[in-house]
This record gives sequence, C-alpha cells and structure tokens, in this order.
Amino acid sequence: MAPTQLNGNGHAANQGWRFGRGSSKEDAMGADGDKLSIRAIRFKIMASVEERGPRPVLPLAHGDPSVFPEFRTPVEVEDAVAATLRTGEFNCYPAGVGLPAARRALAEHLSQDLPYKLSSDDIFLTAGGTQAIDVVISVLAQQPGANILLPKPGYPNYEARAALNSLEVRHFDLVPERGWEIDVDSLESIADENTTAMLLINPNNPCGSVYSHQHLAKVAEVARKLGILIISDEVYGNLVFGSSPFIPMAVFGHIAPVLTIGSLSKRWIVPGWRLGWVAACDPHKILQKTKITTSITNFLNVSTDPATFIQAALPNILENTKEDFFNRILDLLKESSEICYREIKDITWVTCPHKPEGSMFVMVKLNLYLLEGIYDDIDFCCQLAKEESVVLCPGSVLGMENWVRITFAIDSASLLDGLKRIKSFGERHKKKNLLNGF
Amino acid sequence: MAPTQLNGNGHAANQGWRFGRGSSKEDAMGADGDKLSIRAIRFKIMASVEERGPRPVLPLAHGDPSVFPEFRTPVEVEDAVAATLRTGEFNCYPAGVGLPAARRALAEHLSQDLPYKLSSDDIFLTAGGTQAIDVVISVLAQQPGANILLPKPGYPNYEARAALNSLEVRHFDLVPERGWEIDVDSLESIADENTTAMLLINPNNPCGSVYSHQHLAKVAEVARKLGILIISDEVYGNLVFGSSPFIPMAVFGHIAPVLTIGSLSKRWIVPGWRLGWVAACDPHKILQKTKITTSITNFLNVSTDPATFIQAALPNILENTKEDFFNRILDLLKESSEICYREIKDITWVTCPHKPEGSMFVMVKLNLYLLEGIYDDIDFCCQLAKEESVVLCPGSVLGMENWVRITFAIDSASLLDGLKRIKSFGERHKKKNLLNGF
Repeated sequence: MAPTQLNGNGHAANQGWRFGRGSSKEDAMGADGDKLSIRAIRFKIMASVEERGPRPVLPLAHGDPSVFPEFRTPVEVEDAVAATLRTGEFNCYPAGVGLPAARRALAEHLSQDLPYKLSSDDIFLTAGGTQAIDVVISVLAQQPGANILLPKPGYPNYEARAALNSLEVRHFDLVPERGWEIDVDSLESIADENTTAMLLINPNNPCGSVYSHQHLAKVAEVARKLGILIISDEVYGNLVFGSSPFIPMAVFGHIAPVLTIGSLSKRWIVPGWRLGWVAACDPHKILQKTKITTSITNFLNVSTDPATFIQAALPNILENTKEDFFNRILDLLKESSEICYREIKDITWVTCPHKPEGSMFVMVKLNLYLLEGIYDDIDFCCQLAKEESVVLCPGSVLGMENWVRITFAIDSASLLDGLKRIKSFGERHKKKNLLNGF
Repeated sequence: MAPTQLNGNGHAANQGWRFGRGSSKEDAMGADGDKLSIRAIRFKIMASVEERGPRPVLPLAHGDPSVFPEFRTPVEVEDAVAATLRTGEFNCYPAGVGLPAARRALAEHLSQDLPYKLSSDDIFLTAGGTQAIDVVISVLAQQPGANILLPKPGYPNYEARAALNSLEVRHFDLVPERGWEIDVDSLESIADENTTAMLLINPNNPCGSVYSHQHLAKVAEVARKLGILIISDEVYGNLVFGSSPFIPMAVFGHIAPVLTIGSLSKRWIVPGWRLGWVAACDPHKILQKTKITTSITNFLNVSTDPATFIQAALPNILENTKEDFFNRILDLLKESSEICYREIKDITWVTCPHKPEGSMFVMVKLNLYLLEGIYDDIDFCCQLAKEESVVLCPGSVLGMENWVRITFAIDSASLLDGLKRIKSFGERHKKKNLLNGF
C-alpha cells in the first residue's frame, strides 16, 4: 500500500500523505478561518502599518488597555498572585472545575448582586472568557440539530466556536436607534423548536451600551416563552459609566436559566492571566435537571484549566481589590468615552447612533459614499493603518459591514491624536464632487 | 408557541425547556463522559477512601508529584515567573500562538537534540499538554471521515477529545513482553486510506517504557508507508533513568512529519502552570504544505492561551534551570522505580512484565482469579482505597482492563508503605481454596 495510491485529498495526495485540509465549507480552521478570528484580522491590519512611520502607532482596536500605565492593575492584585506562586503549594494540577476555595469566593462575590445565593457548585472556573465560550458552545453543540441565537453585531469567537462544533447559528439584530437593544421581534421570528439558547452581551461589546432592568426582564420573558437558556456574556461586567447601572442577567434567573460568562480580564485589566468563569444562575436548578451542568463538568474534566496559583489568588483578589481602583478606571473610561463621542460627532462622514455608557467601545457607521476609493470597512481599516498608523476594528468581523469599532480605553492624549488622524484621513479621501455641492 | 409543546428531548421537554442532554451514543460530555476522564475516575476512587481513617491516604495514581517537598521545582524557576509578573508588562493578551521570544527560546531548546533546526514558526504554545491534545485532535477531526490510531494502553484524554470531535479512533496494541513496544503489525492492519495519524507516547505513560532508536526508526518508516503523521507525546520527555536514552521522535521528522507534544508540567514539575506546546518537527515542511500548521494557528487564534507572564518566563526557565535539579529528580525516580519494581515482584497475585525506565509509572496486571470478591480493576481500586487508603489508577481507564497503573513519583517511605498496604490487602482477599493447594 503506497502513499501515492491514496485519496484525492488535494495537497495531501500530491505529497503522498493522507492528512491535510478538510473539505468542510465552513471550516473555521482552514484557509478561511482567519475571517472568524478577531485576532487574525487585527494581525492583518497591523501588517498594513508602516513599520518605520514617523508617528507612533495608535491602537484603537483592542479590548486590553493593560499596557497603558493609567490602566495597570493594582499592586495588591499582583501581590496576591505572587504570594500563591511563592508558597509552592499551587504548582499542582487544579481540580477539574476549579479550586474549591476559589469557586466559593466567586459564588459569594457574584451573589452580592442577586436576589438568591449561588453556591460553589454553580461556579466553573475557566481559562479566561475564551474557554468559557468554548465550554458553553461545545456543550450546546452536543444536542443533535440544535441552533443558537447570536446578536449582530456581536463577538466573533461565538461564531468561530460554533463553526468548529458544527452548531447552527442564527442572528438577531441589535437596534442602534434604541441604544442597541435586542430586537425582540427578530429574536422570536428566527427561533424554532431546535433553538436552545440565546446570547446577550452586557455591557455590550462592541456597542458600548448597557441594558436597562426593563429590557433584561423582557428578554428573560421571551427566553422563557421560547424555552431557551440565556448565555449572558458579562465579561465587561461593572464597567459602566453612564446613567444605566449594571444589572447581571442572573437577577432574572428565576424566569429563564442563565449561564453567566465572566472574567478578571476587563474589570481587573489582566486579560493575560486567563482567569474566567461560567456561573449557572438558575434558582430552579433547571440546568442541573437537564444535565447541562454535568456536561460542563465532563467537558472541563478533559480540558485545560486556569493556572492553579492564579486560581488560588482569586479569594484574596475578590476580597481585597480597593473600590478606589475600580472608580479610577470608571472615571478614565467615562472621560475618554466622552472625548471619543464628542470628536466622532464632529466627523461628517461617520454616524454614531449611541453614546457609549459601558465596556470600552463605540460603534460607528462609515458613510463610504462620501469617501473616494474605499471599498469597505476592512479596506478602510487597512488604508487608515497604512496612512495614519491608527488601528481600528472593522465591523464586518463583528457582523456589521461598513461599521468600525473604536476603543476609548486608552489615555486621552493618544485618543485625541488618533481621532485627529482619522479626521485627516477622511479629509484627504473625501469625494471632490460632493464637496463641490452637487 | 408554548414550551410545553416542544420536542421529545427527555428531561428538557418535561420541564418545557428545549435544551438538555444530547442523544449521541458516544457523548463524552454526557452521563457517560466520566468514563473517559482520568480525573473523574480519580475522584470516584478518592470518594471510596475512608475520610477519617487511621492512616494517611497514599496517592499512587497521580502524574503530579509537585506537592512532595523532594519534587518541588527550583526557586529560580519560580523566580522567573515572579519576575515577569512583577514587570506588569505581561498582563496583556498574548499573541495567538505564543509570545515570539518564548517560541524562539523553545525552538532553540528543542533543536539541541535534533539533526536540523526548528524555527519559531514551528512552535505553538498551548495551555499545558491538555490543550496541545485539544488542538491536534481538533485539527485532525476536520478531515471528513478520517480516523487516527491510538495505543492501548494509552492516555484517555486523546480518546475523550476524539469523541468530542466525532473523530474515529482505532487502537493498536503495545506489547508488554517486548518492553511495551508498538505492535507494528497490529498498527498496519488497522490502518486504511482514511487513517491520517498515529500516536506515540515516549517515555511511555502509563507503561514506564522508553523506546529505542531502532524502534522509533521502524515506527517512522511504517508511518511513511501508511502516509500518516506521527503525534509524539513527549510530555514525560527526558524523564528517563534506565539503560535507554530519551530520543525525541522529531529525530525521524525527515521520514514522516512529527507533531511533538511537550510541556513544562513533568520535567519541571509544575503541571498547574499550564504551559505546553506543539512543535511541528518536519524538515520537509509537509505539515505546512498540507495546511496542518495553518489549521493549528487558526484553532489557537480562537482558543485560550497559557498565561502571558508564564509564557514570558519561558526563555529564562529554559536557559537557567540547573542540571543539578534534573539529575536529582532522575535519581529520585530511579530509586523509587527500583523499590517499586522489587516490591511488586514480591506480590504473588500481580504480574509486572517490564521494569520501568522512564516517566513516573509502571503497569501491573491483576491476577483476579487469585482474589476473592473483586470483580475488576475499578472494583479493586475502590476496595483498596476504602480498606487501605491507597489510591491507584485502574487500567480500564487506560484501555487495559484488570491492570493497574502505579505511580512511583513519591517519597520512598510513602511508596514502601503503600506497597505494603497493597500486599496486606491481597493477603486478606486471597482465595482460600487456592491457598490450600487445590
């Protein structure tokens, strides 16, 4: 049996090797996989930046301000991790779903904002929000024929993980004119008897909106009516600085079961520590009865974990991080979000339908008919990166073609500089005939 | 549309909820999922231990001796991680497949033992060996209809991850009488045109064997003939203390492409740090041409990562860990493996076909016809845990019913105590009629 006799699998056969690229249409790992990865798109746009340009590169695409001194996590938080590392007691493998003390501390922490108590058993520690998405989507994908409902715009890791697991995705709209609320009619119209879950992101990435009590209650009622669970991505939880308070979806867990996804990454500004969680917020224990929590446990038992000594530091971090730090970060975000919104309003060739009140982002629509020689949002981002060394996140990776996501989690001077460069870019690319008033 | 009208999905329908347990037969996440998880089995056996028994529990099932003072990682290694944490520069998200400096350092480190040089591009950092298995199996599962060949006995995470990805697994035997070498005939006989990869574990978990240059060369030639790639799990790499040196499979990468899986976990005894890797060891760049490396990159771009500051410490760890530490650990393992083998030889109701020369384990066959009232290896392990507070890993979770895996990575006094308790257990449970010489 010689390798050259083998199957007709493209490259592989040419080499006499049987392995190689699969042929699935929606192959998130294949040549098209980079379209589903926000990281891959960012690398592509970064590659457009002139390496030896005269001005510093201004990154306005990220959700990670940890490199800016103003946003550094407090020294007590780093101390907590250094201390558990130094004991030498946490070099060992962790338990499958997290260290008991860490799960207990997190259950208590999250329960502070709820009308019921979570227990340790409701908490599953994950290696960042990314692994939390992995586990939730992988568990839902086990139900044959199931589909889930995701928001548009949204966070592309959900789509990518669903594609990897061959889980069908259907999209409902967020409505820019209504503060990016969920279009509940569109949500109901796409659900069918195989729909098992919907995703809510609050505070919203990429839109910067924060949902009201009334809107969340309405979403919970619709989920109840449809018989589906709610994945509530609260990775930007508590990062709110407008008139709406942050309300965890778990408050409505008695109406429909909620799997809350959270993380230290954004509020503590340590995304590289890779500590996140899934919390089963469900006072009627429906997720237990339907074995969703068993599936989560079994999945995590064969998956990687957050580093043990980082888990071990969690009780200390949750108890001892000072309110001062959180307040200072919120002040920074509030100030920069206001600068951002004000300056954007001043740009004639974009539309910004909603002032951000949470997370680190705002969504802006590009009115490309006003600009010359720019095909779409990705082209816009690449040209902007090349000419102005400003990096934005193109909307098409988030499900909104010809929009861009702008981060304001950066020092004000850099933000102002970045927005000024965006303006000059637009001035240079404006269509001449339109300027002449035709 | 009321939830009560919905599909007939067991529990879910009873509650009026559409989500719930999938119906796949081989559902690694479902009620049977714990059979595929070494962690879940360990928890089950631990639960049999009498909590307030008179004697300390002796854990002889683990691959993680980090809690024993003799096996603690050197302080310089902990220093390296504390230093990168303290800079505050590595709180950020890492690049998708690892920090460039860490990939470069690892490429250099692994190249020391190879007849060719690996580059940074050949290295993919993962959150422990566990995520390395996840990425390799997930990538191979993308090829429609593919199957892979796994050793029996083996390491059950491969089977679990394959089941999650609906990737077909076929088993070939390791031959106890030939130092647990791969039965190459059995390997060839189960391969077909859809076979894409085989797994080699060296030094071997669970058998404690170390493969010779000649055997590895033969395996590479068979892989070449079959047109398949070799996954070489070298998580226990360099942990050898017998007459056979450790030879990385990558030495034969010019014959057949090798994906080497490695980790800091075992050699540095820090499994809880969750830093591993996949290295594409393939001087002819076949893995690149067949897009396997592209798929790995795309998969890791949407997956979690090792903590950034731990990645950042890797160059320092690789360069500065003293040979003294490695030698001391090898001396410890050599001594305890000899104690273990000697004492086991003295137990009449077990058979140990091969003296361990690497890793932290030995496989022992239970001759259950000599014992009274013990059904199988899991029953044996549960009863032993209950009566003697000794925890072993049952062979059936590793693919070998009625064998057990014994760890000798523990201090000699505890090891001797554990083996003594195993002997007394056997004395108490020996069949009487056999003792009477019938």
